[in-house]
Amino acid sequence: MSSPDRRPLAGIVVADLTRVLAGPFATMVLRDLGAQIVKVETPQGDDARGFGPFLPDGASSYFVSLNCGKRSIALDLKTEAGREVFADLLRAADVLIESFRPGVLARLGFDDERIRALNDRLVYVTSSGFGYTGPDAGKPAYDMIIQARSGLLSITGTESGEMVRAGTSVADIVSGLYAVIGVLAGLLRRERSGPGAGARVDIAMLDSVVSILENALARYQATGVEPAPLGSRHPSITPFETFRTADGRIVIAAGNDRLFRRLCDVLGAPELASDIRFAGNAERTEHRDALKAALEAALARRGAAAWTAALEAAGVPVSPVPGIADVVADPQVAARNMLVEAAGAGGFRVTGSPIKIAGVGDPSHRPGAPALGEHRDRILRELLAYSPERTARLAAAGAFGDPSAGEQ
Amino acid sequence: MSSPDRRPLAGIVVADLTRVLAGPFATMVLRDLGAQIVKVETPQGDDARGFGPFLPDGASSYFVSLNCGKRSIALDLKTEAGREVFADLLRAADVLIESFRPGVLARLGFDDERIRALNDRLVYVTSSGFGYTGPDAGKPAYDMIIQARSGLLSITGTESGEMVRAGTSVADIVSGLYAVIGVLAGLLRRERSGPGAGARVDIAMLDSVVSILENALARYQATGVEPAPLGSRHPSITPFETFRTADGRIVIAAGNDRLFRRLCDVLGAPELASDIRFAGNAERTEHRDALKAALEAALARRGAAAWTAALEAAGVPVSPVPGIADVVADPQVAARNMLVEAAGAGGFRVTGSPIKIAGVGDPSHRPGAPALGEHRDRILRELLAYSPERTARLAAAGAFGDPSAGEQ
Repeated sequence: MSSPDRRPLAGIVVADLTRVLAGPFATMVLRDLGAQIVKVETPQGDDARGFGPFLPDGASSYFVSLNCGKRSIALDLKTEAGREVFADLLRAADVLIESFRPGVLARLGFDDERIRALNDRLVYVTSSGFGYTGPDAGKPAYDMIIQARSGLLSITGTESGEMVRAGTSVADIVSGLYAVIGVLAGLLRRERSGPGAGARVDIAMLDSVVSILENALARYQATGVEPAPLGSRHPSITPFETFRTADGRIVIAAGNDRLFRRLCDVLGAPELASDIRFAGNAERTEHRDALKAALEAALARRGAAAWTAALEAAGVPVSPVPGIADVVADPQVAARNMLVEAAGAGGFRVTGSPIKIAGVGDPSHRPGAPALGEHRDRILRELLAYSPERTARLAAAGAFGDPSAGEQ
Repeated sequence: MSSPDRRPLAGIVVADLTRVLAGPFATMVLRDLGAQIVKVETPQGDDARGFGPFLPDGASSYFVSLNCGKRSIALDLKTEAGREVFADLLRAADVLIESFRPGVLARLGFDDERIRALNDRLVYVTSSGFGYTGPDAGKPAYDMIIQARSGLLSITGTESGEMVRAGTSVADIVSGLYAVIGVLAGLLRRERSGPGAGARVDIAMLDSVVSILENALARYQATGVEPAPLGSRHPSITPFETFRTADGRIVIAAGNDRLFRRLCDVLGAPELASDIRFAGNAERTEHRDALKAALEAALARRGAAAWTAALEAAGVPVSPVPGIADVVADPQVAARNMLVEAAGAGGFRVTGSPIKIAGVGDPSHRPGAPALGEHRDRILRELLAYSPERTARLAAAGAFGDPSAGEQ
């Protein structure tokens, strides 16, 4: 390329000791911003390589969806040779991100002090379930544990009280996004400061989900009433939920009186707009069941597509309720390059970057996901300037896994 | 303070033209990183100031929970005088973030070109429903519209197929987090580049939620089977969901065979560990209904607290299912300063920062939320160096709202 790389993280090297979802999601975002991700795996590889379903070539669809464009090296940190390579990698890196349970990396010989001694410019971010402090520091956690412990589960579910998991791993993903913010904040402070300006950032999944509970926390404290699951409806805006039509559901979000009147007009039910029970948002929320029944009676006259078109034309916020198959085919999703082909994956598409920076380019395809240890020699040669002899010595000493198992 | 401010965004000025949730959430995170947030409101104020429930002093609990520590100025951008002040603010700012529908700010006289001419170092981030490109650019959206349109609604709900909204405004919040990432990425590129290195970043709520659908997209493409709501269970790991005990529910997440065997031991049901139907994760997922019934039969012997303690002691990931009241009282949440008192709000607590940076300090309280226009004179004097005479002239010309209405 003749033009300079305009991506914000061009030239930044990230040593990525994470696996499965939260950390790999974070380093996927960092890669989209231009960083080089050195994925340090155990000789057995990221657990997610074993998560089905699998693509025709045998790769895990889950793993591919999170790891395109990263470079992989397998290191056995239980060997001295593996730790030697890792120490050199930390010297060469700008960022270390890891998601071991607190204490694990220190027991392998890399506590905060040693890491700082190796590279005092390093931005070191950890992602864990409960963080490095407090009575529950170090306890094991999965996304679902945190969805429960944070209270999110208690406010997600049906009106009759059946609690359900948010359909995506919100705790993993939100903590992954905060980890990205921690990395960028650390790098920015480093640029704006003098030498030795590394940072140590502690991101916890529980903190992350508590931080996004928004009006549930505010409502509970202001009223003393414990928030409960509300089905598809909004706690304080009405109408703002799913509605049945003649042939399927739609979401209508009439956030104010003007939109509500417009909605009643389109539905051919102007009497609802003048009904005293529905005069303002507070009244509509109080009489929500009656309003829902009246709206659904009107909506039963036509199907979801017809109502969506009519309400859109009138400027009333509305949406069909597409399944994943429809989303994959959505023209807006395509126009935004939000589902792009991964190289070498037989047409399998992964998500594009939602951070659209003018002038940077928004690729409509991705490089492929790495095989385990695929970039070992390149990383050792280009990033760490190892000689072939040194690499061979380290391999024989088990740095990259059992030497009798041969090349990665 | 005698020690230097170690926060990554110390000295950074953010002109914040957002309202309600997504944008204010983003600028709350930027404030926690040390930025000065200049909240530019209409003379009527952020809509969220009107959202109940209200605190004893009359402030909106919702508004307070998102806007502590920001400075407020009301500007009427429909007046020439208001636009004059706004142009000066853009000259003085490092960041502009706004969440109008695409085209609105341009129609007020501030298109991309004008903004760049005013300040070519500015990082300009927009947050909108569908983004600035594609067939649906400019359409109105609320969180719930995007939860539907993105497919998230179609995979969140009960096993019998009732779809529910994620209990928090995931579309607003995730797009807010991406907006923060866009701001930081733009600032970092500016620091690493020469003059004139501003950035224009386009964040869409739809892109944001599509980017977090994770294994639903991968599974659908790999298998052709449309993902459906799964209640509280995980699509491919078993047991990994809520279970009934003698007196309430708990979540158990036994992510591998070792944890499953340990779970069976603690439950006094070793026969389940040796049952061929439950031999591996794939078998357990296939026979999930039978396994759930067997586990719940064992769990019925004791209550949620006893099982939580016993499973925790054995290292099996487990959680009770606390309500919001329990979360507010959670010692781990307290130890992490994740709920902290807002000044002047009668003990009302707002969320702390989940980005814990060593050496920066993690405050256990917040400044209060601003009254509408509270910091007008200070902003004009300190940031824009306006004389009292100039401020008076602009006020008379309606820059801050109807001059006949008096001081804000």
